Amino acid sequence: MKPIIRIILGSKSDLDKIAEAKDVLEQFKVPYDLFISSAHRNPDKTIALAQNAKSEGIEVIIAGAGLAAHLPGIIAANTTLPVIGIPFAAGALNGLDSLFSIVQMPPGVPVASMAINGAKNAALFAIQILALKDKELEAKFATYKKDLSA
Amino acid sequence: MKPIIRIILGSKSDLDKIAEAKDVLEQFKVPYDLFISSAHRNPDKTIALAQNAKSEGIEVIIAGAGLAAHLPGIIAANTTLPVIGIPFAAGALNGLDSLFSIVQMPPGVPVASMAINGAKNAALFAIQILALKDKELEAKFATYKKDLSA
Amino acid sequence: MKPIIRIILGSKSDLDKIAEAKDVLEQFKVPYDLFISSAHRNPDKTIALAQNAKSEGIEVIIAGAGLAAHLPGIIAANTTLPVIGIPFAAGALNGLDSLFSIVQMPPGVPVASMAINGAKNAALFAIQILALKDKELEAKFATYKKDLSA
Amino acid sequence: MKPIIRIILGSKSDLDKIAEAKDVLEQFKVPYDLFISSAHRNPDKTIALAQNAKSEGIEVIIAGAGLAAHLPGIIAANTTLPVIGIPFAAGALNGLDSLFSIVQMPPGVPVASMAINGAKNAALFAIQILALKDKELEAKFATYKKDLSA
Amino acid sequence: MKPIIRIILGSKSDLDKIAEAKDVLEQFKVPYDLFISSAHRNPDKTIALAQNAKSEGIEVIIAGAGLAAHLPGIIAANTTLPVIGIPFAAGALNGLDSLFSIVQMPPGVPVASMAINGAKNAALFAIQILALKDKELEAKFATYKKDLSA
Amino acid sequence: MKPIIRIILGSKSDLDKIAEAKDVLEQFKVPYDLFISSAHRNPDKTIALAQNAKSEGIEVIIAGAGLAAHLPGIIAANTTLPVIGIPFAAGALNGLDSLFSIVQMPPGVPVASMAINGAKNAALFAIQILALKDKELEAKFATYKKDLSA
Amino acid sequence: MKPIIRIILGSKSDLDKIAEAKDVLEQFKVPYDLFISSAHRNPDKTIALAQNAKSEGIEVIIAGAGLAAHLPGIIAANTTLPVIGIPFAAGALNGLDSLFSIVQMPPGVPVASMAINGAKNAALFAIQILALKDKELEAKFATYKKDLSA
Amino acid sequence: MKPIIRIILGSKSDLDKIAEAKDVLEQFKVPYDLFISSAHRNPDKTIALAQNAKSEGIEVIIAGAGLAAHLPGIIAANTTLPVIGIPFAAGALNGLDSLFSIVQMPPGVPVASMAINGAKNAALFAIQILALKDKELEAKFATYKKDLSA
Repeated sequence: MKPIIRIILGSKSDLDKIAEAKDVLEQFKVPYDLFISSAHRNPDKTIALAQNAKSEGIEVIIAGAGLAAHLPGIIAANTTLPVIGIPFAAGALNGLDSLFSIVQMPPGVPVASMAINGAKNAALFAIQILALKDKELEAKFATYKKDLSA
Repeated sequence: MKPIIRIILGSKSDLDKIAEAKDVLEQFKVPYDLFISSAHRNPDKTIALAQNAKSEGIEVIIAGAGLAAHLPGIIAANTTLPVIGIPFAAGALNGLDSLFSIVQMPPGVPVASMAINGAKNAALFAIQILALKDKELEAKFATYKKDLSA
Repeated sequence: MKPIIRIILGSKSDLDKIAEAKDVLEQFKVPYDLFISSAHRNPDKTIALAQNAKSEGIEVIIAGAGLAAHLPGIIAANTTLPVIGIPFAAGALNGLDSLFSIVQMPPGVPVASMAINGAKNAALFAIQILALKDKELEAKFATYKKDLSA
Repeated sequence: MKPIIRIILGSKSDLDKIAEAKDVLEQFKVPYDLFISSAHRNPDKTIALAQNAKSEGIEVIIAGAGLAAHLPGIIAANTTLPVIGIPFAAGALNGLDSLFSIVQMPPGVPVASMAINGAKNAALFAIQILALKDKELEAKFATYKKDLSA
Repeated sequence: MKPIIRIILGSKSDLDKIAEAKDVLEQFKVPYDLFISSAHRNPDKTIALAQNAKSEGIEVIIAGAGLAAHLPGIIAANTTLPVIGIPFAAGALNGLDSLFSIVQMPPGVPVASMAINGAKNAALFAIQILALKDKELEAKFATYKKDLSA
Repeated sequence: MKPIIRIILGSKSDLDKIAEAKDVLEQFKVPYDLFISSAHRNPDKTIALAQNAKSEGIEVIIAGAGLAAHLPGIIAANTTLPVIGIPFAAGALNGLDSLFSIVQMPPGVPVASMAINGAKNAALFAIQILALKDKELEAKFATYKKDLSA
Repeated sequence: MKPIIRIILGSKSDLDKIAEAKDVLEQFKVPYDLFISSAHRNPDKTIALAQNAKSEGIEVIIAGAGLAAHLPGIIAANTTLPVIGIPFAAGALNGLDSLFSIVQMPPGVPVASMAINGAKNAALFAIQILALKDKELEAKFATYKKDLSA
Repeated sequence: MKPIIRIILGSKSDLDKIAEAKDVLEQFKVPYDLFISSAHRNPDKTIALAQNAKSEGIEVIIAGAGLAAHLPGIIAANTTLPVIGIPFAAGALNGLDSLFSIVQMPPGVPVASMAINGAKNAALFAIQILALKDKELEAKFATYKKDLSA
């Protein structure tokens, strides 16, 4: 199946922090692709991943990064798709730096911030967005929510 | 037109903080309704607003609150729709309390946090979500984004 | 004996963090019940636990949660009984998020916040409240306080 | 009427910050007395106010202070009555110092912390405690809570 | 004279915050150019300003921004020139967000952070860099430093 | 020899945190006594230790505590002797709470705060004070300072 | 009278923040001198003021500064006299930066930190030190303390 | 080869935190010297290292320290060379203290702050400065940057 969600991580070392998001997407059978591309070390690749997402059929982008986490913001600057940001805890400030770098986006270019290390919720929120136009996903999410409370 | 976005505020005093979101929605001609309903003072009304939203045709809920800002989380607990939270700066901690109360949602129940006082981006992010299934809105947002950089 | 204190935790993983509170209540022979019920994953159960507490003979509710800890506030919104909140340290912000989410309640709906991970004091404070109308408990607490300084 | 609530403030300059608590107590017709007594400048007077409270008929003590706010803790150390602490915003740290000084009490000696400048909730919480043994107050608080949501 | 320093600001509203830097550069007769270009609203222009700087004769770039201040980092990602970042105080977090967003750059792509609102020092530091290869500037800076202590 | 420095700790568990202070005092042959006495659990003992210190020949008091660290402030309230406070890192806030509780003393009752866990400097500062009237200690400290830089 | 206390400020703009310290010293008739000397702009002068203090008859040094407040630490590095530091609130971080810069001194070189803007207590603490060897001052301070509680 | 970069550390225990900077300098074949010299324990040595750097052929100074990290600031006060500061995480505040102590330098005396524990970037930034007047280094850095993105 063609991916409709794109996950972009700032560093290979973030792969374990995104595992729960992948589990959720697989459980909901939502196809996704995943790239490692730093906003600072790979600016061109990062921008291309953002700019090409829409024409490649992507509908929602999830971006996770630590420290001065510019990745979600730079992606949001280069796409019209909704971008969900995950601040990863890394380094001495343990995620407060990445949270502020992601959530405090200036007016005009939103990023939807999840909790620090909130990969699972990033996937769930992407599914809630997609469910608005996919009856099957909508039903699956309703079931998931019911199961949560059981 | 029937509203497709629902704005819920924790307090009447937050009305001026949401003004920019209303401006954006009106500029994009996205119909919305708006309620004042505190998670703590009006729990039943708040839950009803969340639980009934979907059947009333709402597709995205925007919730803004200050202090121990439980409103977006409680709404998210009571709907399958995507919920966007806006932490308002209020009181001595100037929004750090509401940011933490909104963004640090536990796994299973996401809230998409905007910046402190980030009402404008909340509306824009809701539009980005709706644009996934509305070609006209998609075109308008693409134009908006182009105009941003001009 | 019929429980007069109700403990509600947001997650099974918080059980070890409440152990000291249970020890204190057992030492003072104050009957309590204990429920796991997340404000976000189990909103209906949580509200029912709050709304029914009084008619079931409960006099004080102790609620503990981590992250965006809305549990004590939502319980306080749904009962007239005094609610004591315990912020649990969990996740990257190590309890500062749960502290702010619990202590910064808006005017009208108080929650009495204890220290981060302050389960023992939550139980002691509940006992101080109950001791106002229970001579035996009053005497026990006076003894406890004397023993503290020994 | 004999006072059953004692309010103690660390400084005369805190009188305006306690006004809402006084309004609530007067509205609920709960008799109280009020003293200015710093934990640091008037240690003997402060301890006497705490130690004598019970025998003078006081049932709940409310203590508010700013900066290194030791007042509620020192009072709690010298009474078996429940103590409610209000951190006042004062000085460069704007109440974060007083919040930490009040809420982070060590095991054995609880103080129930309200929000920074949360005087109104301190009074309401005291009333919730007293209502456990006063049917009339219980009814009044139930009405107050109903009116809140109107 | 051809500019050798490039100043880039995230927003027109930051112009007054950079005034002291301009004063210093003019006092030292160091030619500079100045652009308003947001990393998020004008990503292409921003990247072009960074990528072209070297070939246009620029030797040092100064970038200032508030909130989730990605500007200096994105510029550093797109040039080999030294980049000096100035976190501007803006919004509810008063510059702590922009400081973390600028100073916490990941390994491989440095940004030299100045103090919050430290525009003057940004200019002085740029001059210290340039003075390493410009005897006249070196002498002027030595004089400036002597005058400082007078 | 009669003690001239009094060390008071809030809890037995702080004994290891004060070890470096004891080492310094022993190295300088400054006699001291040491008590465990919590401001909250042992208020009478604590106040007596403060009030009697001067008449017992004590010249400087060192007090260390964690969490809501009221100990140094309460001691300062009950003596005219200089009081040096050491915030100990304990619990979820890792000493920021004890630092604020110690350093932010209100006007009129000073406490000299050392760094978090700064026991060694507390002893050295006490020695600097005593050295003002003790030529031998003055010489020893001058030697210590010279050795530091070697 | 020959000064026995030396006050050093990092900037002329701090003069109003030290006023209360001067008032106290004058009220207690403790002679002092006062210098403006930045640790960064006037390093030689600052070091000389520290190094010469003892031979000039100074017994205690009070140093106040804002931002990255290195002044008290640098003075402490260059004298054997006790140094009292006052963090001044200045700039966007409102004194948290100067507090950390002053109180977190490394082992070996103590600075006694007062509260942010705690000039008055700096003077009082200096007097408490001097009172250890000055019976008249001791008596005055005892009176002051008694008057505090009146 | 004669060193052109000088690294100064506040403590021998910081040697492991600077390792990555040394690796980078060696990889780029930039000669450097390295000294352990605390701003507080070795003030004279520290100042001499700063004051003599220029005449000894040094072009950039890198200084790293933890806690109240005055080292980079004091060096900057005593040289006209560009100074790069690295806040090291040490002690209970985990680097937030050293970050504030380094980055919040007052107007007139800049220090270029890197991230907490950002030794690698300090070396890279020094190289970017030196590359402005060294074609070979410029070419090497361009290659490094290209390799980063590969």
